[in-house]
Amino acid sequence: MTREKTAPDLPVVGDGSGVAPGAEFYPEEVRLALRNRGMPLEALRYDITPVGMHYLLVHFDIPDVIADDWRLEVGGLVSRPLSLSLEELRKRPKVTLPVTMECAGNGRALMAPRPVSQPWHAEAIGTAEWAGTPLRGLLEDAGVKDDAIEILFTGLDRGVQGDVVQWYQRSLTVQEAMRSEVLLSYEMNGRPLEPQHGYPLRLLVPGWYGMTSVKWLAGIEAIAEPFEGYQMTGSYRYSQSLDELGEPVSLINVRALMVPPGIPDFMTRVRLVAAGTATISGRAWAGRLDVSRVDVSTDGGATWSKASLGDPVSPYAWRPWRFEWEAKPGRYTLCVRATDSEGNEQPLEQRWNAHGMGNNVCQRVEVLVE
Amino acid sequence: MTREKTAPDLPVVGDGSGVAPGAEFYPEEVRLALRNRGMPLEALRYDITPVGMHYLLVHFDIPDVIADDWRLEVGGLVSRPLSLSLEELRKRPKVTLPVTMECAGNGRALMAPRPVSQPWHAEAIGTAEWAGTPLRGLLEDAGVKDDAIEILFTGLDRGVQGDVVQWYQRSLTVQEAMRSEVLLSYEMNGRPLEPQHGYPLRLLVPGWYGMTSVKWLAGIEAIAEPFEGYQMTGSYRYSQSLDELGEPVSLINVRALMVPPGIPDFMTRVRLVAAGTATISGRAWAGRLDVSRVDVSTDGGATWSKASLGDPVSPYAWRPWRFEWEAKPGRYTLCVRATDSEGNEQPLEQRWNAHGMGNNVCQRVEVLVE
Repeated sequence: MTREKTAPDLPVVGDGSGVAPGAEFYPEEVRLALRNRGMPLEALRYDITPVGMHYLLVHFDIPDVIADDWRLEVGGLVSRPLSLSLEELRKRPKVTLPVTMECAGNGRALMAPRPVSQPWHAEAIGTAEWAGTPLRGLLEDAGVKDDAIEILFTGLDRGVQGDVVQWYQRSLTVQEAMRSEVLLSYEMNGRPLEPQHGYPLRLLVPGWYGMTSVKWLAGIEAIAEPFEGYQMTGSYRYSQSLDELGEPVSLINVRALMVPPGIPDFMTRVRLVAAGTATISGRAWAGRLDVSRVDVSTDGGATWSKASLGDPVSPYAWRPWRFEWEAKPGRYTLCVRATDSEGNEQPLEQRWNAHGMGNNVCQRVEVLVE
Repeated sequence: MTREKTAPDLPVVGDGSGVAPGAEFYPEEVRLALRNRGMPLEALRYDITPVGMHYLLVHFDIPDVIADDWRLEVGGLVSRPLSLSLEELRKRPKVTLPVTMECAGNGRALMAPRPVSQPWHAEAIGTAEWAGTPLRGLLEDAGVKDDAIEILFTGLDRGVQGDVVQWYQRSLTVQEAMRSEVLLSYEMNGRPLEPQHGYPLRLLVPGWYGMTSVKWLAGIEAIAEPFEGYQMTGSYRYSQSLDELGEPVSLINVRALMVPPGIPDFMTRVRLVAAGTATISGRAWAGRLDVSRVDVSTDGGATWSKASLGDPVSPYAWRPWRFEWEAKPGRYTLCVRATDSEGNEQPLEQRWNAHGMGNNVCQRVEVLVE
């Protein structure tokens, strides 16, 4: 797993220590924000996010994959290497599963100091109905050998990150890769994947942050050592500095978000709400766990009330919640926080890390009631 | 056409004079960039942009429209007011037309000083295959009276802009509204509109910047005076200050863009290209006009060479171009500029205006050849 040659020296943005709260943004952060796309939070109203509103994070470029020329190669420490066309994959057993996916960097720009990268606030989420064939069956057909400890997934997107020229690659332990819900997905919301979501095939790992669900999947390789490529060791880590390795990022933390109520101001996104009974609603999710409680505050977190919960869309997808608020004229900060089935509650203050990973601080929405 | 009540005082971002070149971005600009979405420029490879990659600018929130409850009301100075369901609109004559749409603010963030709003660089574009029924037939059925001079279009998106609480509204002269290519569109790329693109119905005005193609269309009204609402007089103007009215923004200016060649660096988006023959390709468009020429420079604009042109996708859509480049090791600034059939050429230096409208400065892409 040697790294490829180092890229020529490229400009460095920031000094790695982050940017003070409230400070302005680097042009490079803005250019990333214009390429990658969040889900406008009013789309929390849909059980299934329309394809064009699902969040999207693409490290390099969206590759130009011609499905007729494409094959999925399964190799490494397997007894029977496989090479499969899209048609062959479509003939295998098919599973359809609504899954809530979230970027590991969601909430990065709300951290203080702010780590410099894609400046997500809270919108790097979405729930799609993914369909494909279970990875496990394919690995069983290939016969993963006993000395394999990880499965390495290689996408067709290529570029430079951390001065390393690379294909986008991530690995899973054999045990995680063999879980029944892990799919090789070729459909999103009943249609072939759009190019930006990984056409013709992506890995789909429910419960994990999105970096694990490798898009434009071309290679699956059983390996004997932990994969130490850039996307495993140079990023997607909980660490206190960019030089420290820290713990790997894996499962999605518990989170609730609300549909911002009322109407927005174009530039500031401050909300205007009419006085009277206002329904505050949204969604909550917790990776592989259930959401056991959602609480709402209308006074900036001083006091909290329980929201009512609807049924989850699937075991790996968000569930709806709602709260009736008697809104009287004034200025308010609405907050929402969820608790998962193991008792983990969203923090009121963000926990900092150098890459801006896994931030699930409770959402705050400024509202003006008239 | 009186304005609705003024909104309560909301914070103002910037002083209206713009921000110095190269300076950092306000948090409000970043939040807009995270909601609105550009087309990643590698998608210039497609004749028709996939729905989820088409640019999107939404002033307020994406409204929650239930098609069964929705009707299009046609009234004002007409002999026979109409009220039509989506089904009734779908039974009318259907036209399908590929159209290149561009946001009037595309390129705003490249202006110096930078006007403060959605910080588009060059990605606010897309070409979709729109289908719907011609507006003209509907207006003829309604019988627009002789004293009507404009047609006013009202969308279901509501919010505050310029301290004015408003539904999104734009008007066209009767003459423009009667042009044969103007559609009431209910399909994009062969499917019902996704919510963010105006479901169930949007106006589609080929050749005009996107602000004219009102989404979530609910009302059409023939009126006797020019409409002076915020989106006609408070924005979408070529002016030298926010207080000056200036000329209205209307048709799309000539522009060419290239697919950035090679592979990108994640953070800086600098491109690495292998030495040898590199094909530089992209698209060019000019609103209602044809593109007559595309020129490429590999030395930052000092010298130019003609690119070869392919056929337009439709009379209102972009055409492809390509250029073979013998790339030798070094650092380069690639540029592209188009000329339209009336001899208008993209400027090498941007022409400033206070709202950041209609910027069609030639694209510059930094490339490192190894």
